[in-house]
Amino acid sequence: MLRVGIIGVGTVGASVANILRDNKNIITARAGKEIVVTLGVVSNLHKLRDVDIKLTDNIDDVLNDDSIDVVVELMGGIDKPNEIVRKALLKGKAVVTANKALLAYHRYELQELAGDIPFEFEAAVAGGIPIINALRDGLSANHIKSIQGIMNGTCNYMLTRMINDGVDYNEILKEAQDLGYAESDPTFDVGGFDAAHKLLILGSIAYGIDVKPEDILIEGIQNISKADIEFAKEFEYSIKLLGIAKKVGNEIELRVHPVLIPEDKMIAKVDGVMNGISVVGDKVGETMFYGAGAGGDATASAVVANIIDIARKGKGSPMLGFENQPGEKITLMSKDNIQTKYYLRLEVADKSGTLAKIATILGNNSISIEAMLQKPLKNGSANLLLTTHISIEKDIIKAMNELENSGVILTKPAMIRIEE
Amino acid sequence: MLRVGIIGVGTVGASVANILRDNKNIITARAGKEIVVTLGVVSNLHKLRDVDIKLTDNIDDVLNDDSIDVVVELMGGIDKPNEIVRKALLKGKAVVTANKALLAYHRYELQELAGDIPFEFEAAVAGGIPIINALRDGLSANHIKSIQGIMNGTCNYMLTRMINDGVDYNEILKEAQDLGYAESDPTFDVGGFDAAHKLLILGSIAYGIDVKPEDILIEGIQNISKADIEFAKEFEYSIKLLGIAKKVGNEIELRVHPVLIPEDKMIAKVDGVMNGISVVGDKVGETMFYGAGAGGDATASAVVANIIDIARKGKGSPMLGFENQPGEKITLMSKDNIQTKYYLRLEVADKSGTLAKIATILGNNSISIEAMLQKPLKNGSANLLLTTHISIEKDIIKAMNELENSGVILTKPAMIRIEE
Repeated sequence: MLRVGIIGVGTVGASVANILRDNKNIITARAGKEIVVTLGVVSNLHKLRDVDIKLTDNIDDVLNDDSIDVVVELMGGIDKPNEIVRKALLKGKAVVTANKALLAYHRYELQELAGDIPFEFEAAVAGGIPIINALRDGLSANHIKSIQGIMNGTCNYMLTRMINDGVDYNEILKEAQDLGYAESDPTFDVGGFDAAHKLLILGSIAYGIDVKPEDILIEGIQNISKADIEFAKEFEYSIKLLGIAKKVGNEIELRVHPVLIPEDKMIAKVDGVMNGISVVGDKVGETMFYGAGAGGDATASAVVANIIDIARKGKGSPMLGFENQPGEKITLMSKDNIQTKYYLRLEVADKSGTLAKIATILGNNSISIEAMLQKPLKNGSANLLLTTHISIEKDIIKAMNELENSGVILTKPAMIRIEE
Repeated sequence: MLRVGIIGVGTVGASVANILRDNKNIITARAGKEIVVTLGVVSNLHKLRDVDIKLTDNIDDVLNDDSIDVVVELMGGIDKPNEIVRKALLKGKAVVTANKALLAYHRYELQELAGDIPFEFEAAVAGGIPIINALRDGLSANHIKSIQGIMNGTCNYMLTRMINDGVDYNEILKEAQDLGYAESDPTFDVGGFDAAHKLLILGSIAYGIDVKPEDILIEGIQNISKADIEFAKEFEYSIKLLGIAKKVGNEIELRVHPVLIPEDKMIAKVDGVMNGISVVGDKVGETMFYGAGAGGDATASAVVANIIDIARKGKGSPMLGFENQPGEKITLMSKDNIQTKYYLRLEVADKSGTLAKIATILGNNSISIEAMLQKPLKNGSANLLLTTHISIEKDIIKAMNELENSGVILTKPAMIRIEE
């Protein structure tokens, strides 16, 4: 028998307990032993919960119970769960967590501390999709060329509605909040931070790279306008918030931002609240993994899979995918050096000389234009929408600053990177 | 160090050897030890091969070499590889195979014989897609409600071209043969047998069900006509050859046949030679796994992942996903009792009374019509294309026989099942 203590019995924690109860027969058959939740920790014992496990409000009741083999951490936050999982590991207990923020900051110290004790976190990235499993085990023969992940269902729902139904950003944000897809303070989701936490975890497994959220480029979807959506549709792009990891020589790009992506790409077809992660390996080519990225049962499905794995084989694969240091020295690519195509939206006065001035600024910064579209606006000005050939991020940023100060641009220029 | 012998150094075998050489540094870092191919077995030593491993034409050189830890079986066939992997297991060697036919017939005996010795076969289903890994480990918390898999790239390529470009079956078969996607005798692919082998492996992991290819419904794509394609497009369906596993009560449906599937389903968007497998779990909801189902490097990616797994943890998860017998008694559903919607294509004489007679036959067999379309043919007859509400397979078969003998149908009626 494998004994489990759950710290944090909210939506996901209750689902974990209930799956282990509802699917007990098949789980026991698969795991080879019974898995029993012996204790759950909650902060408020008086709140009604849809579980039939024994509850306590004292975390030490789990940590000090020598009969508990696995601690499932589902409380959220960073410092407190970090303290708790460290205590659990020091007591020799296996740990399963869905806590992406904890891992975004402390994954390497935790791997070090865990050593031969199982520490699993399938639910931390893309909820029910077994992407950790796929990347760490299924694709382990490959150098990973790139990862493109739709890993935030809130943003994907909002962007899908904006594209399919022409709803604008503020309207759809309110709808997402009403539906419970977005928090009252939506910044963590729409600002790209949630996706960034997940991306860093995948980056570690693909490349063994140890960076923190503040080291990487993170942009949210807040500035996507109707004009951008219309341009995307006209040029057969979809707009997605992607977490992107790419290997270029010995450098790794890690970035989260909205992208224009050709609508016939498999990842561009992942709509609504669903998540999808495309992984390109040097041998396997492109693979894609699709499913529910959030929700109590889907997330708990991943947590319980980790518990079953621990019941079956104890410590399985190395926590972050590498038993030893990767052979080559890899470093994070500077944001300045990212190279891709760009889309720019420039609100311009509709008068002669404007285009020449813009073209000159772009040309002086080694940026060449691939496609262009000018659309009149109601106020007498116009939106100049253009895409560039492959350019360097620092050149684009410099050109955007120059454009903003040139006198021919009426509002701050907007930019979306293009992935092809 | 983990020592590997490869039996069968064709396209996939050569890729396995070359991946272990080319990606040696990262594989060693991931596995925690060096993995070395010490010997490969070929039938003809004089044939030029793109590998730099030591070769022999004597299988016993691998089987009797006590230093070899893992035997990779890539020779194809059933009886001979069965004999060889049994010998390898009896000598305590781990086995990795890509041989779906071997597993379609002998997976349970091999599991029994393997016991605690690793026996892995990720490459046997959908090539480079880590679907065994996903189903056996990643989704292990779930009762699997259904699996729908595009698991034969040849058929998917042909159907995609037929739908997108209006090419007819014989023309596209020749093209697929010229491109090397289809064999000169294409029956194994286009007849659905290859997909059936893969489906049975997935069925075992999902449900623990032990059946052979001859026990299940297998139909190929040979009878898909231009009229069917046009109907599909008109009613926003795609046509795919699916391997389907479904749990209905304590019965499991296992079947391979072409289906009409709504074109907005994720699996319907898997085009060309690519494979895709949709798995619906009772907790996780729908997941989908996409990638290359064939090709030397993609298939070898899965073989090498299995070898890395063995290097990391020896015996991992139970070979077919269950440590013990599943708690409930499950049985294969009789083909007669399958329930789904159907599409029928009936070539009829364009004269009064025909429709009444057809409607009577269908009605007498408890089949009700959902949608109908009649299209004139050049020869003065017409194609009557119709879909039914959910019906029972045996009623459809009986109605089709009665229609064929009714005198109002000019050619054998054609039927495609509908998945929604």
